[in-house]
Amino acid sequence: MAKTLELFYDFGSPYSYLASTQVEAVCQRHGAVLAWRPMLLGGLFKAVGSVAPALAVAAKMPYLMVDLQRWADHYGIPIAMNPNFPMNSLTAMRMAVAADERGHQVPFLKRVFAAAWAEGADIGDPATLVRLADEAGAPGAALLERASAGHVKEGLKANTEEAVRRGAFGAPTFFVGDEMFFGNDRLSFVEKALEASA
Amino acid sequence: MAKTLELFYDFGSPYSYLASTQVEAVCQRHGAVLAWRPMLLGGLFKAVGSVAPALAVAAKMPYLMVDLQRWADHYGIPIAMNPNFPMNSLTAMRMAVAADERGHQVPFLKRVFAAAWAEGADIGDPATLVRLADEAGAPGAALLERASAGHVKEGLKANTEEAVRRGAFGAPTFFVGDEMFFGNDRLSFVEKALEASA
Repeated sequence: MAKTLELFYDFGSPYSYLASTQVEAVCQRHGAVLAWRPMLLGGLFKAVGSVAPALAVAAKMPYLMVDLQRWADHYGIPIAMNPNFPMNSLTAMRMAVAADERGHQVPFLKRVFAAAWAEGADIGDPATLVRLADEAGAPGAALLERASAGHVKEGLKANTEEAVRRGAFGAPTFFVGDEMFFGNDRLSFVEKALEASA
Repeated sequence: MAKTLELFYDFGSPYSYLASTQVEAVCQRHGAVLAWRPMLLGGLFKAVGSVAPALAVAAKMPYLMVDLQRWADHYGIPIAMNPNFPMNSLTAMRMAVAADERGHQVPFLKRVFAAAWAEGADIGDPATLVRLADEAGAPGAALLERASAGHVKEGLKANTEEAVRRGAFGAPTFFVGDEMFFGNDRLSFVEKALEASA
């Protein structure tokens, strides 16, 4: 069986954006399969009794943008604090689950992450999400409609509950088998684990 | 003027311990002067309205030890969760300030960090601190006595207030000039800043 890297992500998390730009290359380097796992960070926080760190403590906010910019420079990618932060990602995450059913998740998530964290788009707005899906070559209107289907809602909830059950408390969270890694800044440890796994 | 790396630390912070084992080599590589800045993390948390992350959210605790072990393996150093965690570091931090007045801060802090994070010592216990200071070649009993002197208490308070004023919200916090870096896991960015600074 091929080794797998699972990435639990939420569009509202800028560190998930950073990680999303790197994980495909990481998997390529180690011959690993990448499993994108959309979850609802707000639901995860609620389940573990946490809140977004940068929102809970005012002093963390100015540093957040500095730190994100350093990572973006390090990766050579664009980044911009979103004026709509913190964003309601519920519809977007449900659309990611819906997109996955027809093989559209990856182009959709890449487009949404870029819009959220390099273009200042309001990804809480359904019309914006439809446009972004269309731009990614996915059927935006159909995805938005399917986002409210029961099994799609349940699918997102199940992913989130699975993340909680496996020990996650934030995003992005990676798994290599049972080994959990929290944060874009642990990708080098993720690589070591992929290298070590059979 | 030589470039300087300032490190604000607290003995109760395991990530400060990790960083403490690396910063001298970092400074050597970049011809930088290292300024060890003892502060009181509890006071910092109080000032910025925060709490220790691993204590605020139960789900973070099991991951904490896993993550610390990964870093210790990465650095090739010993680590062990302290049964006394979270520890009251007030006397130890005051002794670090007192030790600094006679040039004993560095051997003292290295001994205390190792005792706290590799040997399970109770660094909230004054007698233990005296022993550790003696083992580090510093006059333990004298340091403990000076720890309660007004100017030593004020010195620790001033360091903590300075950290707050400059934007810190946790430990370890590094400064290269005005640039702030939070966390052992940002040492590679600290190195880049030292490389870029005149």
